[in-house]
Amino acid sequence: MIKVGIIGVSGYAGAELLRLLLNHDEVKVVSIEARSYQGQPISDLYPSFYQVCDMICESDEDVLQKAELIFASLPHGLSEKYAKYCDENNKKFIDLGADFRLDSEQDYQEWYKLDYHEKALHDKQVYGLSEVNREKIKTATLIGNPGCYPTSITLGLYPLLKEKLNLNKHIIIDSKSGTTGAGKSLSEDTHFPKCNESFHPYKLGTHRHTPEIEQELSKMANDDIQVTFTPHLLPVNRGIVSTIYVDLKPEVSLDDVYQIYQNYYSQEYFVRVLPKGKIADLKFVKYSNFCDISLHLDERYHRLIIVSTIDNMVKGAAGQAIQNMNIMYGLEETKGLKMVPPSF
Amino acid sequence: MIKVGIIGVSGYAGAELLRLLLNHDEVKVVSIEARSYQGQPISDLYPSFYQVCDMICESDEDVLQKAELIFASLPHGLSEKYAKYCDENNKKFIDLGADFRLDSEQDYQEWYKLDYHEKALHDKQVYGLSEVNREKIKTATLIGNPGCYPTSITLGLYPLLKEKLNLNKHIIIDSKSGTTGAGKSLSEDTHFPKCNESFHPYKLGTHRHTPEIEQELSKMANDDIQVTFTPHLLPVNRGIVSTIYVDLKPEVSLDDVYQIYQNYYSQEYFVRVLPKGKIADLKFVKYSNFCDISLHLDERYHRLIIVSTIDNMVKGAAGQAIQNMNIMYGLEETKGLKMVPPSF
Amino acid sequence: MIKVGIIGVSGYAGAELLRLLLNHDEVKVVSIEARSYQGQPISDLYPSFYQVCDMICESDEDVLQKAELIFASLPHGLSEKYAKYCDENNKKFIDLGADFRLDSEQDYQEWYKLDYHEKALHDKQVYGLSEVNREKIKTATLIGNPGCYPTSITLGLYPLLKEKLNLNKHIIIDSKSGTTGAGKSLSEDTHFPKCNESFHPYKLGTHRHTPEIEQELSKMANDDIQVTFTPHLLPVNRGIVSTIYVDLKPEVSLDDVYQIYQNYYSQEYFVRVLPKGKIADLKFVKYSNFCDISLHLDERYHRLIIVSTIDNMVKGAAGQAIQNMNIMYGLEETKGLKMVPPSF
Amino acid sequence: MIKVGIIGVSGYAGAELLRLLLNHDEVKVVSIEARSYQGQPISDLYPSFYQVCDMICESDEDVLQKAELIFASLPHGLSEKYAKYCDENNKKFIDLGADFRLDSEQDYQEWYKLDYHEKALHDKQVYGLSEVNREKIKTATLIGNPGCYPTSITLGLYPLLKEKLNLNKHIIIDSKSGTTGAGKSLSEDTHFPKCNESFHPYKLGTHRHTPEIEQELSKMANDDIQVTFTPHLLPVNRGIVSTIYVDLKPEVSLDDVYQIYQNYYSQEYFVRVLPKGKIADLKFVKYSNFCDISLHLDERYHRLIIVSTIDNMVKGAAGQAIQNMNIMYGLEETKGLKMVPPSF
Repeated sequence: MIKVGIIGVSGYAGAELLRLLLNHDEVKVVSIEARSYQGQPISDLYPSFYQVCDMICESDEDVLQKAELIFASLPHGLSEKYAKYCDENNKKFIDLGADFRLDSEQDYQEWYKLDYHEKALHDKQVYGLSEVNREKIKTATLIGNPGCYPTSITLGLYPLLKEKLNLNKHIIIDSKSGTTGAGKSLSEDTHFPKCNESFHPYKLGTHRHTPEIEQELSKMANDDIQVTFTPHLLPVNRGIVSTIYVDLKPEVSLDDVYQIYQNYYSQEYFVRVLPKGKIADLKFVKYSNFCDISLHLDERYHRLIIVSTIDNMVKGAAGQAIQNMNIMYGLEETKGLKMVPPSF
Repeated sequence: MIKVGIIGVSGYAGAELLRLLLNHDEVKVVSIEARSYQGQPISDLYPSFYQVCDMICESDEDVLQKAELIFASLPHGLSEKYAKYCDENNKKFIDLGADFRLDSEQDYQEWYKLDYHEKALHDKQVYGLSEVNREKIKTATLIGNPGCYPTSITLGLYPLLKEKLNLNKHIIIDSKSGTTGAGKSLSEDTHFPKCNESFHPYKLGTHRHTPEIEQELSKMANDDIQVTFTPHLLPVNRGIVSTIYVDLKPEVSLDDVYQIYQNYYSQEYFVRVLPKGKIADLKFVKYSNFCDISLHLDERYHRLIIVSTIDNMVKGAAGQAIQNMNIMYGLEETKGLKMVPPSF
Repeated sequence: MIKVGIIGVSGYAGAELLRLLLNHDEVKVVSIEARSYQGQPISDLYPSFYQVCDMICESDEDVLQKAELIFASLPHGLSEKYAKYCDENNKKFIDLGADFRLDSEQDYQEWYKLDYHEKALHDKQVYGLSEVNREKIKTATLIGNPGCYPTSITLGLYPLLKEKLNLNKHIIIDSKSGTTGAGKSLSEDTHFPKCNESFHPYKLGTHRHTPEIEQELSKMANDDIQVTFTPHLLPVNRGIVSTIYVDLKPEVSLDDVYQIYQNYYSQEYFVRVLPKGKIADLKFVKYSNFCDISLHLDERYHRLIIVSTIDNMVKGAAGQAIQNMNIMYGLEETKGLKMVPPSF
Repeated sequence: MIKVGIIGVSGYAGAELLRLLLNHDEVKVVSIEARSYQGQPISDLYPSFYQVCDMICESDEDVLQKAELIFASLPHGLSEKYAKYCDENNKKFIDLGADFRLDSEQDYQEWYKLDYHEKALHDKQVYGLSEVNREKIKTATLIGNPGCYPTSITLGLYPLLKEKLNLNKHIIIDSKSGTTGAGKSLSEDTHFPKCNESFHPYKLGTHRHTPEIEQELSKMANDDIQVTFTPHLLPVNRGIVSTIYVDLKPEVSLDDVYQIYQNYYSQEYFVRVLPKGKIADLKFVKYSNFCDISLHLDERYHRLIIVSTIDNMVKGAAGQAIQNMNIMYGLEETKGLKMVPPSF
């Protein structure tokens, strides 16, 4: 049994992580932390845990001492010190926040307005996109777990960019996310009477996931990929749909693209390339760790439309973190994550 | 491994049953049937199953032959022949429909406009309210799995009626159900633009769950209990909330009621009596087999208000069916059903 | 043109009032007030007003000076001073809050924990249930506009209680309200990921509308009526459905009840008694000033079930306030309120 | 009073048209038709009309004879004969369907698989995009009322294309529509348990609004504009958001674009160009005839993102039809359409 702890269990990603870990039979959650709720049972915050898990929220020190693997789910800028402690004390660390995703401190400074204080630490970070970086994750001790939007987008574009099927370097990404992506904090935009029966884009051209997306896509393409990324707020609880527009090279057919995607993903349990003609729908990945991808061609202009959908809380956060844990510990990669998504 | 089969897998309860059974490690689903989809994979009907379970829908005969335990989830009037076959062939049968719930053929005739053709069979039926009828279920071979509304209501009233805390025999039950309760068939009432942002009662005084509710409540009370039962359609996918009004005997306090409910349910994994002051919310039982109950007193008139909530598809259908299977086969009762409900 | 002003335009009821008044051709809104937004255009708060009405929020003094009729939509305890000013300065005052609804200061103290400072003023207050108190409203200068739940409930019970068709004095009311009833202030319960796909009762036996309901029902019955009132939070934006349970006198048939309701309401534009067999649905009153009522009998126990539904923001707040204004000024009662509710 | 009639009142657009026309004080609706409901009052189909308008559905002949202006809201292929009758009998005809939108019969044949039987008639048709074709509409007798998606898109791009601010001729349009766009007919995709908490694109590259969009954009640009148009189904009742991606000419700044849009639309009541920095949201146009537009620049690639939002049932159908009627009859253009959209 792996002894794991969670720092920041009170947020949505932290709570989802706990929920999923309780379903994992090679893990024991030994300590959980929630700064504002120390001493209270988790079921006070989330009554769904009542009588199933009435663990008490402890201090961050408790978590650090008791666990061998620490998950952190915190606002940016707060994870470095925990990662440093783990590094110095031979513990593993998986960060669900943004502090260990960007390779370039300059990007971090520009988009998050903060510095990297522990530069050596950042040399050790591995970007936890499980399917793409599996080999590095196996031996990693410090994982920067990908953002939700970046997960849907990078998995959706990986085979295409890797195989250089794209005609040019500009990609348009129109993404839509459920409201859990905005987190547990109250806000005007997620006030029910405002959010319900509403829909709009936000942070056009300024969303912090942009440098993360471009960093990973550029690595895949081994070239400088540029994206126009427009997130929208969907009046649903969970799920991301990214609709991605890429001009295909003229000599590449839709069947070619399908063939390549299937080659890349046929061995991947969690990435499902839908049969030709089917359309990905967030409904069919909700509450699961799947990423469903469908491929479409606007024949008239030979433009590929990739639809990539995940549950932002699972594959886009807690589920992928557990998948990474499984990889790091040499467990079956699907352990604790095999639930079939409900259809309704 | 128990070899199970499902007749009627295309409906919501059947599909949910399959989904949950795939998560049960002492069960092997050997055959599934869906009349209109024979020869098609289940993932054609429910794409969420894609690549996880691509079982092909077979004939009812296939299911009957291959399985030792048959679940049926069918419109009323269609299960008797399958139950008879099982009875004659030493197989177990759990019916998620209404055909084996009513003790009285007269009730069945009055409310369902059909006869019991196999009267001897009905003498063997056991009403599968797991917590209440556990002993009978252990040795049963033919289970009438309770309806969704009756499950929320009977569990909510069981300790009260058993201990005769009620002042009179008339009980008012105001229930609200999510739309999956109306099934997979298209209807005006569940057409999105009509149903969304809507709310209304339906079948006032005429819902077919009424005789089932009164039958079971009367058994609990060992007296003739009469209910006014008003179901409403909630614009959510899942979940039932029953708000139940009962006049308490003057000498019984709210604390007494709490004490008694806790006594009855403290050993029950799936029934959670919430701490005093908390209010049951369908949100916290969704996608789980829990029944959450909260108790409240209108002090001015000494009237007890019981709030009982379940997921209509799980504890109200497929989950309780699996719980009954676990009991029948001497398995751990929570097997395959221990998922923590998601809070969002 | 009546010169009207609104104090408290930033809340939902205030904003709805402004929206509806802009559609009223015998009214000129001369000043609006919103304490935290003084100097800002209303369209900053509610972009739907952009370019249609970009009035600037002014001070309460501005409103009091410029208008001849002042509407106030404020938290309880804040309206008395404005009402007093209007009383002294020969202006009319319609309060959408709770400060002028309760006849008994003792009730106000018990339920709102505040005193009446201007007792003489309260002798002048008229409870603005338009259909019931029309004659008094005609000459009133100070209106306590009814609460949303009380409007749906009192209109639903008026003919029954007035004609003494009820067998006893205890009435059970199970009400469900959309989220705008909880107001514009952010709260856990109305945070989208929590509220969406959720349902639960709240304030069981303690909701502040209870004394208002009992006061008005008792006046109608000329007797001491007692209610068990259970409000629930519906995951929709607007609308209230009250499901009301009353034991009928044995000699009264459902047809009798229909006849009496039709007699009472046939001349009322805004109260629609649905044809026998139809069921009231909040969908069909949304965005309108209608109160739809349907009547049902649980024949087995001769219990009447009254379903009464309104839009909480219109007939339950701003619409009825305008209806009262129309009555006070001798205008056509439906002026500015004749929109057909949208069906989708 | 203009005597108007509606053929096809039972569909959503027809019913919305009736609802809005009842609010128009220079119009008298003299006859309505709904093939499957002849002899029934409209309130049987849509109870929201009960007691406000209990008009009986008549035959198409009744409508044609009684009215001077006929609106038709029918499946494609059914309007031509009515338009012909009107043409021959000196009546005006506004078609809310697709039969008179496409200039090219070849486009109609390709996308709708039908012929133009009355070719002379089609020479008279005017595309009813009110703001753009106002002068032609003034004297038109046969209007092809624009589709919902095309309205949001063409108004969003009009100033840009007219002023040739775009760098190239390929435009990517990612649109999202509420479920009323799918109409009143029951379908899997709009079955509540499927649609709710769901989101997906549909008809990628094949939606029938594509030729209409390209036709109108090409006219505006006086050039051959090509679009990749991807519609998505939003789990809300009403509203369209089109997110449009266009590469700007390098010498054109965002401020330039704003200036030009304001010039074009400052005199238009129904098109609101939001202040710089604000983002259009379908919430703020719902139940209104407004088209809200916001403009954004992805500075890094000088790509303009236009967000254009309408209520698909009003500006996208019935409202624009009434606006066109007002223009044709020389009435104030906003007549019957001035309601402020509700914010919640």
